Amino acid sequence: MSIILGPNRYGKAETRLVRVVRDGAVHHLKDVNVSSSLSGDMEAVHLTGDNAAVLPTDTQKNTVYAFAGKHGVGQIEEFARLLAGHFVDTQPAIRHARVEIEEYFWDRIPVSGHSFVRAGGEVRTCVVHHDGDGRTTVVSGLRDLVLLNTTGSEFHGFAVDEYTTLQPTSDRVLATAVTARWRHASAPDSFGESYTEVRRCLLEAFAGTHSLSLQQTLYAMGKRVLDTCDGICEVRLEMPNKHHFAVDLSPFGLDNAGEVFHAADRPYGLIEGGVLREDAPDAGFAWE
Amino acid sequence: MSIILGPNRYGKAETRLVRVVRDGAVHHLKDVNVSSSLSGDMEAVHLTGDNAAVLPTDTQKNTVYAFAGKHGVGQIEEFARLLAGHFVDTQPAIRHARVEIEEYFWDRIPVSGHSFVRAGGEVRTCVVHHDGDGRTTVVSGLRDLVLLNTTGSEFHGFAVDEYTTLQPTSDRVLATAVTARWRHASAPDSFGESYTEVRRCLLEAFAGTHSLSLQQTLYAMGKRVLDTCDGICEVRLEMPNKHHFAVDLSPFGLDNAGEVFHAADRPYGLIEGGVLREDAPDAGFAWE
Amino acid sequence: MSIILGPNRYGKAETRLVRVVRDGAVHHLKDVNVSSSLSGDMEAVHLTGDNAAVLPTDTQKNTVYAFAGKHGVGQIEEFARLLAGHFVDTQPAIRHARVEIEEYFWDRIPVSGHSFVRAGGEVRTCVVHHDGDGRTTVVSGLRDLVLLNTTGSEFHGFAVDEYTTLQPTSDRVLATAVTARWRHASAPDSFGESYTEVRRCLLEAFAGTHSLSLQQTLYAMGKRVLDTCDGICEVRLEMPNKHHFAVDLSPFGLDNAGEVFHAADRPYGLIEGGVLREDAPDAGFAWE
Amino acid sequence: MSIILGPNRYGKAETRLVRVVRDGAVHHLKDVNVSSSLSGDMEAVHLTGDNAAVLPTDTQKNTVYAFAGKHGVGQIEEFARLLAGHFVDTQPAIRHARVEIEEYFWDRIPVSGHSFVRAGGEVRTCVVHHDGDGRTTVVSGLRDLVLLNTTGSEFHGFAVDEYTTLQPTSDRVLATAVTARWRHASAPDSFGESYTEVRRCLLEAFAGTHSLSLQQTLYAMGKRVLDTCDGICEVRLEMPNKHHFAVDLSPFGLDNAGEVFHAADRPYGLIEGGVLREDAPDAGFAWE
Repeated sequence: MSIILGPNRYGKAETRLVRVVRDGAVHHLKDVNVSSSLSGDMEAVHLTGDNAAVLPTDTQKNTVYAFAGKHGVGQIEEFARLLAGHFVDTQPAIRHARVEIEEYFWDRIPVSGHSFVRAGGEVRTCVVHHDGDGRTTVVSGLRDLVLLNTTGSEFHGFAVDEYTTLQPTSDRVLATAVTARWRHASAPDSFGESYTEVRRCLLEAFAGTHSLSLQQTLYAMGKRVLDTCDGICEVRLEMPNKHHFAVDLSPFGLDNAGEVFHAADRPYGLIEGGVLREDAPDAGFAWE
Repeated sequence: MSIILGPNRYGKAETRLVRVVRDGAVHHLKDVNVSSSLSGDMEAVHLTGDNAAVLPTDTQKNTVYAFAGKHGVGQIEEFARLLAGHFVDTQPAIRHARVEIEEYFWDRIPVSGHSFVRAGGEVRTCVVHHDGDGRTTVVSGLRDLVLLNTTGSEFHGFAVDEYTTLQPTSDRVLATAVTARWRHASAPDSFGESYTEVRRCLLEAFAGTHSLSLQQTLYAMGKRVLDTCDGICEVRLEMPNKHHFAVDLSPFGLDNAGEVFHAADRPYGLIEGGVLREDAPDAGFAWE
Repeated sequence: MSIILGPNRYGKAETRLVRVVRDGAVHHLKDVNVSSSLSGDMEAVHLTGDNAAVLPTDTQKNTVYAFAGKHGVGQIEEFARLLAGHFVDTQPAIRHARVEIEEYFWDRIPVSGHSFVRAGGEVRTCVVHHDGDGRTTVVSGLRDLVLLNTTGSEFHGFAVDEYTTLQPTSDRVLATAVTARWRHASAPDSFGESYTEVRRCLLEAFAGTHSLSLQQTLYAMGKRVLDTCDGICEVRLEMPNKHHFAVDLSPFGLDNAGEVFHAADRPYGLIEGGVLREDAPDAGFAWE
Repeated sequence: MSIILGPNRYGKAETRLVRVVRDGAVHHLKDVNVSSSLSGDMEAVHLTGDNAAVLPTDTQKNTVYAFAGKHGVGQIEEFARLLAGHFVDTQPAIRHARVEIEEYFWDRIPVSGHSFVRAGGEVRTCVVHHDGDGRTTVVSGLRDLVLLNTTGSEFHGFAVDEYTTLQPTSDRVLATAVTARWRHASAPDSFGESYTEVRRCLLEAFAGTHSLSLQQTLYAMGKRVLDTCDGICEVRLEMPNKHHFAVDLSPFGLDNAGEVFHAADRPYGLIEGGVLREDAPDAGFAWE
């Protein structure tokens, strides 16, 4: 029985690029982390070490910096698309490119036109695939959006077995760090405005849903995005349940009416789920 | 157009379990991190917050501890299989369970029978899937196995374009942190001995391959495992290229004949690839 | 020659406390991380394992939660002072308490009165010492305040030796992640307003200083705080120089006029320095 | 009242150096992380940005690489001493140098003379100070030495107050991650052999001490080092109490006789303490 090469790809991960645009005394800042992965006719390099088909990962890094200089960065989805297209279109052995970008946000310090403070909060993300047959998929997203409701969350009526000790509750803290990704069926007029809109939907659905389970909240958040944003056809969410346990203060003669919590690290619940339109186009390689 | 629920699962992540076996004055130690994910009839909980089908993640955690007490831990693949089977077999709404376990290694301090020092080095891993139709898949693995060759690595003959500045080399440091996973077509006599054998194959193939590219080394490592271990049908590897750049010492009047290197953090190359038997059984959900 | 016990302390680190105040439908949130360290008559426990003088670290944790329930949290400096005083005043063997608190910021999601999104950005800190002779010191601070000027920074005229290859520059990116701590000679009317004022000083001095060296910027930031805040007598700053290297795009036929940068990880410059009033009271154990 | 410059230093942190020695087909590997900090006549740079006294941190990095090429690395204490001496002796404005080095361990893969696997386990450390008056201090150390006793540890007889709920125990798991530093009164014949000896003392004292408190174990470990190693005059230890809580399995009808534990993350106890010879020379700046 012979042994064969399985799925494979290679690239340069985490090219940290900061792009400044100087508009007189007012500067603009883009702070991103770019990872590219290429695949194609890669039998030879794996089996014999013949690198003729291999565009070095160092070249991929150079391309990121050169394109930033030549074209600017703009919306990360568009910069990723530009890079992915370039690799597939110019390298005959490359049949498929995946470009992932993270963007970090900064606020201005109003004292000067060139001073910034890192905003913290969530990181904006995208993954763009492009292949030699001209197919392109665009998934936008965010991670590390940390949300908390101090009330408006219940959990009861769950399945019980011999290992169940959890007590049902009608009032708990619900906290999570959202990782969300959404697939575009068509490009929005502005990826930046689309991002702002999706983020608003996620926050408002989280805050506005009286929750009977984190799954219900997750579904409401995804559905809100689809209800609001026409060009988006699917949303996937990963939402850890960051447990906040009410501390038993009765040994100290104190009540604890939902006021004092221990924020636990591990273990944590992990809820993963998606919402999509029934007529969403086939995802293809979008989620890889 | 209606909106539907997409793929979903939920569970308890990172239940940190330490299991001691007391054999008189000689104690044995298992140190593991267990994550379970369940899926099945979960429409109701997402759409209406009805939790009747939901076995709480707290119960999943309790089950890990109770099973550790009742059955011991043993080989992580077998403990994962036991847990996955339990969830699917006892909860009618659960159609599929995924159990992932990490194991941390300890060495004895010979002074007593109950004293240990954490071994460091790699972490052993497994992912077991089991579904309501009795299908089971077992993938074993490791991560953070950090390897380095100070010579015996070349890189030249690669594709060149207008953004290529990398010079070809016939002698470089090759360093990586291996994440490896291997799929069992059939259970070995001993998962522990199988692990030791695979690890030995990975190390020996890394050390014994004169490398023309990291892809070639990766392929040789995977192939060595398949050549040696009958019951394994597929190997997948992720190997970052942890760049070690020779420092230019010529400004200081010094040669640098492969002796002084800067170990860089980011960006890094990332090589992902797999090797499988041509007649490997269908992977099903093994890699999810 | 005999062997003696050196400096020592013990305590509970990183008690993660979330305190909710329910003001009708409007809830307020405090998210803190409390670490206490006690010292005193600890010869016996070290030499013979006699724990009579040891208030367990578990009790210290309980005290944090109980005090949060009984007194609320309020300004972290005041909560730390309350805890430190309690340990020293109620345990005869405890002669000295050090309480360190970190506070994480949250913004409201305006949809409800009980929904919050983690603000990211910097973490607020304090360290309070209190001893059995009634001496108390209060140091407030912050960490992870990430700042960047895209211009207005030069570096030249430095010492040169045979190992110097750095070229002088009259225009570079200056980026840092500020850790700042400031010692109070007297308590401000409001630690919260004082914090806001110091943070504003740090940002404005960073943004408003045309920098010839990061040391100069650091000094200007500390001095601005002392110039503005009467009750603060000393400021200490740690400011890594997070290097942003202009990428050489000339191999690709492109200029790079301060527009495309590689944000490097390691190594990094590290500038540590302090500013104090000439007549500042003795620091005592404030900085330990 | 005037404002003055407080304590300050500056340098290059985390220069990651890998040094290979090629002895025919057998290569030797040193993997270190070097941080230097200089101080001296630094009024001008802070107050006016005049850099004449400043040896750039970039030059400090170059010096690390150049010295590695010229002199090799050898024992980290000696390499640190060499660097510290160089900075103070060649730069008139530099009155004091602090050099900190971490060393990562690798094992050979016996297949070739040039193949290595990272050993994991603890990291070896040192901090060397040298000043313009010829004073030198050397502190060696380690961190991340993770130790665990499954029995042989008790905790009872502690102080009790109204916030105490902890039950006394005569059998618990004792686990910690040791950070140890030891000060040399005189240089040993071999820093490498001295390191091995100290590590052996720490392990054997941890394993061989029936513990009534972690403080007692800490003291025994430090004392063992002083009892064994003549040239060492002081030992400082930081030992978190990594709590392993016995899980209550009684709800599931199971006993738990010290067999099933939850390894907790936060909060954790933190025990810091030192042991020194009564006639130890003054530490000076050794611990800064």
